[in-house]
Amino acid sequence: MEKLYIIKIGGNIIDNAHLLTKCLTAFSSIQGQAILVHGGGKLATELATTMGIEQTMVAGRRITDEATLKVVTMVYAGFINKNIVAQLQALGVNAMGLTGADGNLITAHKREVVNIDYGYVGDVDVVNYELINNLLSSAIKLVVAPITHDGKGQLLNTNADTIAQKMATGLTKHFEVHLVYGFEMEGVLTDLQDPTTLIGFMNKVQYENLKAQKIIFDGMIPKIDNAFLALEGGVRSVIIGKAEKLNQLINSTAGTTIKI
Amino acid sequence: MEKLYIIKIGGNIIDNAHLLTKCLTAFSSIQGQAILVHGGGKLATELATTMGIEQTMVAGRRITDEATLKVVTMVYAGFINKNIVAQLQALGVNAMGLTGADGNLITAHKREVVNIDYGYVGDVDVVNYELINNLLSSAIKLVVAPITHDGKGQLLNTNADTIAQKMATGLTKHFEVHLVYGFEMEGVLTDLQDPTTLIGFMNKVQYENLKAQKIIFDGMIPKIDNAFLALEGGVRSVIIGKAEKLNQLINSTAGTTIKI
Repeated sequence: MEKLYIIKIGGNIIDNAHLLTKCLTAFSSIQGQAILVHGGGKLATELATTMGIEQTMVAGRRITDEATLKVVTMVYAGFINKNIVAQLQALGVNAMGLTGADGNLITAHKREVVNIDYGYVGDVDVVNYELINNLLSSAIKLVVAPITHDGKGQLLNTNADTIAQKMATGLTKHFEVHLVYGFEMEGVLTDLQDPTTLIGFMNKVQYENLKAQKIIFDGMIPKIDNAFLALEGGVRSVIIGKAEKLNQLINSTAGTTIKI
Repeated sequence: MEKLYIIKIGGNIIDNAHLLTKCLTAFSSIQGQAILVHGGGKLATELATTMGIEQTMVAGRRITDEATLKVVTMVYAGFINKNIVAQLQALGVNAMGLTGADGNLITAHKREVVNIDYGYVGDVDVVNYELINNLLSSAIKLVVAPITHDGKGQLLNTNADTIAQKMATGLTKHFEVHLVYGFEMEGVLTDLQDPTTLIGFMNKVQYENLKAQKIIFDGMIPKIDNAFLALEGGVRSVIIGKAEKLNQLINSTAGTTIKI
């Protein structure tokens, strides 16, 4: 089967032009099919502040009211997505930027209110593999913004890590899928302040132990949960590490490789 | 040849949810291939004001400095484009929103400074007909935001009327193209205050006369110039009128039909 790399980038790399260019240059040198999924960075929060829209975070997640949805749609689907696409075009990559609404790429439903009302936040239902196959086979590389839709006219703010995992898992029928989570750290560290404490390989037992010891906590937990979901769904490899070291992550010479 | 309708919408319809839905419902009922090109509305100006970015207009055209380019990219390619796409999806239309950078759809160059420096404003060079044909033949309807790129990583703010005309003209090799310019007026009026003074048909001689008498002036001139360029380039029909009357415009029962 043909190789497909799904690269998710997020965190401070989105806000740092130099690091972003480094990462996109590495992306442009990928041999085989590739999809880039990007997060949001600080720009959405900054714009919301400028516009006087109060931001509420619960357990590290943004509550998406109507005004905030407008902000993230502008920033993620507009500014960030189109600047990444234009840069990739300049690097010779025929990139196309899409949200979940475009071509009905990703359908989601508004998250049900249990204890917390997250607002216009979407949980992914269906990924349109036919569209992805069609575009990839036309030598187009997709750049996916973390906005989905419910098919009834509502856009929804959606976690980019989850989008990357759902796309990766679903595409295992058609491709040998490799998933890379690029962010601001070297990978999974036993001491966040010390990059030399990088864990090169981590299986599920080790993960459960590190979680129980609270060495892995907060935002790393859903990221690594997504990594295991991807592997259990047939994704060939999942690596987590520094986004600007994308080449080394793909070659497994940097970052943390997650194993079942 | 198969029919292709290129519908450009702009002006106050973008800011009016009720009228926009009416127009998109009409768009969803088009038999045959269709492309929607949208302008910006007042939202970009409002956001720029909120963000404290001063807007300079010269002869009715916005000077696009770096901060303004960011605003229009967010508003046109993000908020407006994705909301139109989500609404069309809800109406059963498999819409895909693109800028000129996406899939290298439209390449442009930064307008040269003659007397006025328009900033990051693009003049269209090349429309990627292969991509358009490929997407249309996959039963996708395109929704084009008025942002292009120069192929060197620079996004450019680009006139939506011109984009519609360039796409229409270029696609005459493959389709029987009909171009509709939808905006806030009934069409070309001899008295702007009186919708009953609508000119049903207008040829080039009549246009030159009305221009000489200053009955047609300001923003209508480039719009009608684009209409004649389209007809001279092989477009089968060009109609200008009220965007929410899209069905009647397509049937030539409303608006001004432009004739060579």
